[in-house]
Amino acid sequence: MAILYHHPLCPHSRFVRLAMSEYGLEADLVEEKVWERRAPFLALNPAGATPVLVEASMPSVPGADVIAEYLDETRGLALGDRRLLPESPRERVETRRLTDWFNRKFFDEVSSHLVMEKIYKRFMPTNLGGGAPEMAAIRAGRANIRYHLKYVGYLIRQRKWLAGDRLTYADLAAAAHFSVVDYLGDVPWDEDETARGWYARVKSRPSFRPLLAESVPGTAAAPHYADLDF
Amino acid sequence: MAILYHHPLCPHSRFVRLAMSEYGLEADLVEEKVWERRAPFLALNPAGATPVLVEASMPSVPGADVIAEYLDETRGLALGDRRLLPESPRERVETRRLTDWFNRKFFDEVSSHLVMEKIYKRFMPTNLGGGAPEMAAIRAGRANIRYHLKYVGYLIRQRKWLAGDRLTYADLAAAAHFSVVDYLGDVPWDEDETARGWYARVKSRPSFRPLLAESVPGTAAAPHYADLDF
Repeated sequence: MAILYHHPLCPHSRFVRLAMSEYGLEADLVEEKVWERRAPFLALNPAGATPVLVEASMPSVPGADVIAEYLDETRGLALGDRRLLPESPRERVETRRLTDWFNRKFFDEVSSHLVMEKIYKRFMPTNLGGGAPEMAAIRAGRANIRYHLKYVGYLIRQRKWLAGDRLTYADLAAAAHFSVVDYLGDVPWDEDETARGWYARVKSRPSFRPLLAESVPGTAAAPHYADLDF
Repeated sequence: MAILYHHPLCPHSRFVRLAMSEYGLEADLVEEKVWERRAPFLALNPAGATPVLVEASMPSVPGADVIAEYLDETRGLALGDRRLLPESPRERVETRRLTDWFNRKFFDEVSSHLVMEKIYKRFMPTNLGGGAPEMAAIRAGRANIRYHLKYVGYLIRQRKWLAGDRLTYADLAAAAHFSVVDYLGDVPWDEDETARGWYARVKSRPSFRPLLAESVPGTAAAPHYADLDF
């Protein structure tokens, strides 16, 4: 069976877990504490980041975007019109644009700050950057998420799913990033009911269940986190 | 003809210009000052970043990685064994891993700091973040580039090109990022002769010529910048 090196609250890992589940692929999950910079892990991904997918007869596949393209190329066609990266150039551009929006822009502006300050730093030794959270970074993440939430609402008022009329990688990436922030209780859902409705739809999918059951020692999930009717 | 919104020292724009030239595609170049956040430009790319490719009969294609995948899917096959994203899943993983390494990791650690502090800030109004360069950021970029240069040398001691035995997107992305830092005179080529040899090979390609002829008002290129035998 494949192995996925991940962290429970790494949004990029969650994106790949959702995608693999939608493809019907199973993997053994191995939790990786990237700040330890373990040599065997660095051999799998010299960039030292999760997620990394290891399948039999292939070198390791490192990084959420590389894994997503790899899964599309090796398994996408079999999904027919449920393919997560749709066929036409136009739809592929829009799906990739928005997947990148969340995996990169939302991460840089929101989820990286909140996960780093509120979770990772608690587990990292002081000499590797651990310690008390920086409130300025948390405040920045909480301020920035508001316009991303609005953007989701704006898109969903025009389309059924983020990139068009069907579920794509863009929805899975966005929901993965929102889900870690939601675990921490930092998504102001009241500010956009359309965005909330979209997240409720993604959250109700069977692929989402394992994420909702997950917890991190010492930081309980926000009370509504696993509630499908939040 | 296609239009490419770019900035002369934006490394992601340079990567796309190199790729388009290798594909034999021409585009009208339109310089975009992203910090002005022009509404018509934001309509083409809500993320507000260069590069953006606009072709007839297609919505805009925003972002270097999205453009690279789009070009591969619409023009790649015609290049046969000169395709910049090779066919096999294994080679595609390695090419994408290293393209992402430079477009993201090298950018975050090196080229974004140096271009922002030494170039963009000179043209940005003070209220949009312009002003004197932050020396700490410049020092960080100059320190970080050293291990990236070593990594290029390490790879090229095992392979002809960065991702394998042929030129790929990985070489173009890496060379694009190194080229902007080289324009500023901040690549310590003396520290790795193998990496220097690789860059000399990429720099000698016809696709590179327009980049070497480019200049930015008020900041002259380092003396060896356009020299093929540096």
